[in-house]
Amino acid sequence: MNNTDALKNIRIVLSRPSHPGNIGAAARAMKTMGLSDLRLVQPRHFPHPDAVVRAAGADDILNAAQVVETLPEALSDCVFAVAATARHRELRHEALDARAAAHAVVATAPQAVAIVFGNETAGLTADEAANCRIWARIPVNPEFSSLNLGAAVQVFAYELRMACVIATPAPAPEFAPATLEQVEQLYRHLEEQMTVTGFYNPANPGRLELRLRRLLARAQLEAEEVNILRGFLKTLERPKIR
Amino acid sequence: MNNTDALKNIRIVLSRPSHPGNIGAAARAMKTMGLSDLRLVQPRHFPHPDAVVRAAGADDILNAAQVVETLPEALSDCVFAVAATARHRELRHEALDARAAAHAVVATAPQAVAIVFGNETAGLTADEAANCRIWARIPVNPEFSSLNLGAAVQVFAYELRMACVIATPAPAPEFAPATLEQVEQLYRHLEEQMTVTGFYNPANPGRLELRLRRLLARAQLEAEEVNILRGFLKTLERPKIR
Repeated sequence: MNNTDALKNIRIVLSRPSHPGNIGAAARAMKTMGLSDLRLVQPRHFPHPDAVVRAAGADDILNAAQVVETLPEALSDCVFAVAATARHRELRHEALDARAAAHAVVATAPQAVAIVFGNETAGLTADEAANCRIWARIPVNPEFSSLNLGAAVQVFAYELRMACVIATPAPAPEFAPATLEQVEQLYRHLEEQMTVTGFYNPANPGRLELRLRRLLARAQLEAEEVNILRGFLKTLERPKIR
Repeated sequence: MNNTDALKNIRIVLSRPSHPGNIGAAARAMKTMGLSDLRLVQPRHFPHPDAVVRAAGADDILNAAQVVETLPEALSDCVFAVAATARHRELRHEALDARAAAHAVVATAPQAVAIVFGNETAGLTADEAANCRIWARIPVNPEFSSLNLGAAVQVFAYELRMACVIATPAPAPEFAPATLEQVEQLYRHLEEQMTVTGFYNPANPGRLELRLRRLLARAQLEAEEVNILRGFLKTLERPKIR
């Protein structure tokens, strides 16, 4: 049996793509594998004839592509996002190869999930990658790791289809997972209270933000847990009575 | 250990490619995965600046690519060839998906082996496919099966590299996980502060403790993260100055 319906719930996000041809190539790669939801964060040129040429018939995906200003906006209704990145320095998120990540995404795909690709030259920034729960990389030749953006989308899209063809539908989760937007609100609330107490100094953030975001990404919070933690943070806003 | 040396013996053959840009894209796709042997059967335009542009640094592969007149010539020293084709009519060869074919190719790769791709529009002819021992296809969306030639080479090249890379033992964790005792101390500290603010009433605990413990268990905290969170909780103990 196959389960390619899951592909409808999987979003491809291109963050700050420079070349419209690559947007078209990504749309074509997506459509060949049955994906259809494309979001673009600040594309340098879009719409653009080069995108249409390289899409080679996947115009419907380009026409339906939403353009947004920020990555959190592109992910706000997703419960889960994967950063396509070869980053492996410093603080790591859970890091998988593309195949394992595709299985994780398909297992979650009864709900909205996303795979995020960075700019052609710079890749994903640390901040962008920190918005995602899992980091995933395509194993490449260490001496020539320059995978074209459209080709990277093709490999992930292919692995997603392969994962669907062999995966069985995942059981519905017992509790409602938090959306990335809810987790972001929790992070902001926590940072705010940490600033009030003097624990966190925004002028000298060090690595605290990165560490906390990494922790939140790993914890896979439920919506109700976000409510509990924010409820506690809210009680801190009241002056103490002594 | 991995076995990417096998990639040196695997040849990519493009039969009658129309667009030089696709030759460049194929060269780049090959190089990112560690392949280097490219042969071209009657390319319409080659060498060509479009190929160099799309190769994006894989010029060495273009420069070393041999141009030949016939497919048998391109395969003459190979012991084994795979036709990349979605053909499934008429008399069938053994037909595999790209993943299974990649494993078969890598297993044979101590000797010279090839994967053969047809023209962008027409694909492989029946005669061309008949030159190959195995037919292999990339599973695609039946409603839009138009995979770009460079993208098809990318998927096969990726599967070849994946087939070569044998799982290595997981590396030791980079960060020290928290002990259960440290997590318990964190929980006690959190409960204490939640009690002080009135968020938690020990006389009427409800399911809060259970939920928080479940969250902490799932989060797989590191020792340093426990320190950060307890550091924050400690700042809450100081009276606010207003």
